[in-house]
Amino acid sequence: MTALLLTGIGELTTNVAEPDDVCGTRHDAAVLVRDGVIAWVGPTRDAPEVDAPVVDVGGRAVVPGFVDSHTHLVFAGDRSVEFAARMAGSPYAAGGIRTTVAATRAAADDVLRDRLAALIAECRAQGTTTLEIKTGYGLDVATETRLARLAREATDEVTFLGAHVVAPEFAGRADDYVDLVTGDMLAAVAPFARWVDVFCEEGAFSPAQSRRVLEAGRAAGLGIRVHGNQLGPGGGVALAVAMGAAAVDHCTYLSDDDVTALAASDTVATLLPGVEFSTRQPYPDARRLLDAGVTVALASDCNPGSSFTSSMPLMIALAVREMGMTVAEAVWAATAGGARALRRDDVGVIAPGRRADLVLLDAPSRVHLAYRPGVPLVRRVWKDGVEV
Amino acid sequence: MTALLLTGIGELTTNVAEPDDVCGTRHDAAVLVRDGVIAWVGPTRDAPEVDAPVVDVGGRAVVPGFVDSHTHLVFAGDRSVEFAARMAGSPYAAGGIRTTVAATRAAADDVLRDRLAALIAECRAQGTTTLEIKTGYGLDVATETRLARLAREATDEVTFLGAHVVAPEFAGRADDYVDLVTGDMLAAVAPFARWVDVFCEEGAFSPAQSRRVLEAGRAAGLGIRVHGNQLGPGGGVALAVAMGAAAVDHCTYLSDDDVTALAASDTVATLLPGVEFSTRQPYPDARRLLDAGVTVALASDCNPGSSFTSSMPLMIALAVREMGMTVAEAVWAATAGGARALRRDDVGVIAPGRRADLVLLDAPSRVHLAYRPGVPLVRRVWKDGVEV
Ligand SMILES: [Zn+2]
Ligand SMILES: [Zn+2]
Repeated sequence: MTALLLTGIGELTTNVAEPDDVCGTRHDAAVLVRDGVIAWVGPTRDAPEVDAPVVDVGGRAVVPGFVDSHTHLVFAGDRSVEFAARMAGSPYAAGGIRTTVAATRAAADDVLRDRLAALIAECRAQGTTTLEIKTGYGLDVATETRLARLAREATDEVTFLGAHVVAPEFAGRADDYVDLVTGDMLAAVAPFARWVDVFCEEGAFSPAQSRRVLEAGRAAGLGIRVHGNQLGPGGGVALAVAMGAAAVDHCTYLSDDDVTALAASDTVATLLPGVEFSTRQPYPDARRLLDAGVTVALASDCNPGSSFTSSMPLMIALAVREMGMTVAEAVWAATAGGARALRRDDVGVIAPGRRADLVLLDAPSRVHLAYRPGVPLVRRVWKDGVEV
Repeated sequence: MTALLLTGIGELTTNVAEPDDVCGTRHDAAVLVRDGVIAWVGPTRDAPEVDAPVVDVGGRAVVPGFVDSHTHLVFAGDRSVEFAARMAGSPYAAGGIRTTVAATRAAADDVLRDRLAALIAECRAQGTTTLEIKTGYGLDVATETRLARLAREATDEVTFLGAHVVAPEFAGRADDYVDLVTGDMLAAVAPFARWVDVFCEEGAFSPAQSRRVLEAGRAAGLGIRVHGNQLGPGGGVALAVAMGAAAVDHCTYLSDDDVTALAASDTVATLLPGVEFSTRQPYPDARRLLDAGVTVALASDCNPGSSFTSSMPLMIALAVREMGMTVAEAVWAATAGGARALRRDDVGVIAPGRRADLVLLDAPSRVHLAYRPGVPLVRRVWKDGVEV
């Protein structure tokens, strides 16, 4: 069907060991795309003769499309006033989620769909080609189902997060709410979802309640992910590892045992520095995790309360500035790491047979993603070989 | 000549006390532009009937074009490797400037002009409509003159910064270099410049040397600005205030006397948080300055060594996250504050008679500039009433 040849790539991040660089970069490279898939990667001088449009990128850098494995993009309402108040000194209040829940329940499908489409377009323009989207602003059967259906129109990676916080109608009756989440709500949402998630944190769900949610989700055929150890130490990471979760996300407050358990597991630690930026909380220590051998992903956690950014380039810059990651580690974590966190091997890597999800930077190297913070460096984006 | 009417502005930041808000915002506002100048500001319902294109911005926010009063945009070469090394743990080395000096001296005018044009286009796309540009990567008479001439092609706000560091040929002979800067170099550069600047800091120029540079510049008809108190306490702020400088920039390490002196002066304290982000240095305390009554500006310091960002929106987000500023204060500092730092009253404010430099945000309020860090929210930009 469609074909495309990119040539003159000054620095190509492949995320696979290469003749040029075992860390996964090639210089003066070319990529042939056919039918939405990468057909060939090699030196520009060896590029095949093909009957396809050729784009000479003039020495610029190409990276895999970003894989944002943690977002909450389906919602209504605005919380900019809460943000401004927090920056002026009010503490982070998880209860702020309820503002979004009320607005989301009240919003028509078309309103939610239009808002979601605008945010997805914004993500794509910034180089994100794979997106996970969670429910969690409905907290009742009807709205959670609506959110999952709307998210499913936009991505295969839908996560059921009925256990985001206890619904306001169940205040003081968390176990009853877990009954609903694991019962009727899960049954209604599961057909649209690939994953189940829970906010395992003091003030949200206990490790025991979290385990109930995850076990029910698994029994319904869903994969497991966890929000944990964001605001303090707790059992989230241990539970995630014990249950073989694909990822445990936040990971700011970790014991040595947590780190050891993660390193010995297939569970990815997903770090979300947009949250720490926007809530003025301490950043997680990525260096400690990497040095211990933990697989680390970076994601935006894009949501209206604690991190209303969709910018994976800023996540990379923050990871380098604040979390002790090298640029190479941060770019890997935002691409291949995100893919690992979604248990995907078709994205996050530029190699034959993988999806042709490519980001052309207006820069000679990926270092510029951290060296030039805030500057919109994403010049062109292809998803499945089609420019977006 | 040209006219334009913007209507349906959900939040208009005027930077002058308004009926809606003494801090300088209007809601449901309209702006009429004629011949590059703002002709009228008022409620949309009162907008005049004019024979002009009408742009209904659909409730989005408009702010004055950003005034970036401190950049070093004319240079050649790349220092991304130095950046990556520093992030991996090497300390900040001011000597790195010499890498850029060597590349800049060796670069042809066309190379420098093209690079500058690309960076200015990048600035404009991010909403910067007034730009100061410094020399300082030549450090010899011929190259400093070239840089000033090239900068003058792009902006009226050219600053002579021959006293950026001591030229390598003068190592150990700083006073001799100051003789050159205040003699032949100043004579050659002054016709292209509006300002003189000096890096008054341990390891660069002493207060006595700095005073010589500034006095010579003033005698040649230039206004005064100072780089000071960036890396440690020192005499930069005191000198700037004593000499009536328009601005003293960096201001990280300030004594109580420095703050008191600034508050009693017309000298603006320009904060450059891109530098602290990119060098992992402590951020200046904007709150302390504001509470003392100091006029604060925000600028990018865009340069290849210590802050290779041109993003005024990111400066606003960092000022709010890291420096204790409210969003309103940060937006003022990045617009009217920058104008004050350049002693300009024609920009930075949206009011009749001022230049029609306008930024339309893809957001309902300016708060989103900090609430949505890294997201390219600048949707359309007009400079002198012409869309860029
Ligand atoms: Zn989340
Ligand atoms: Zn500077």
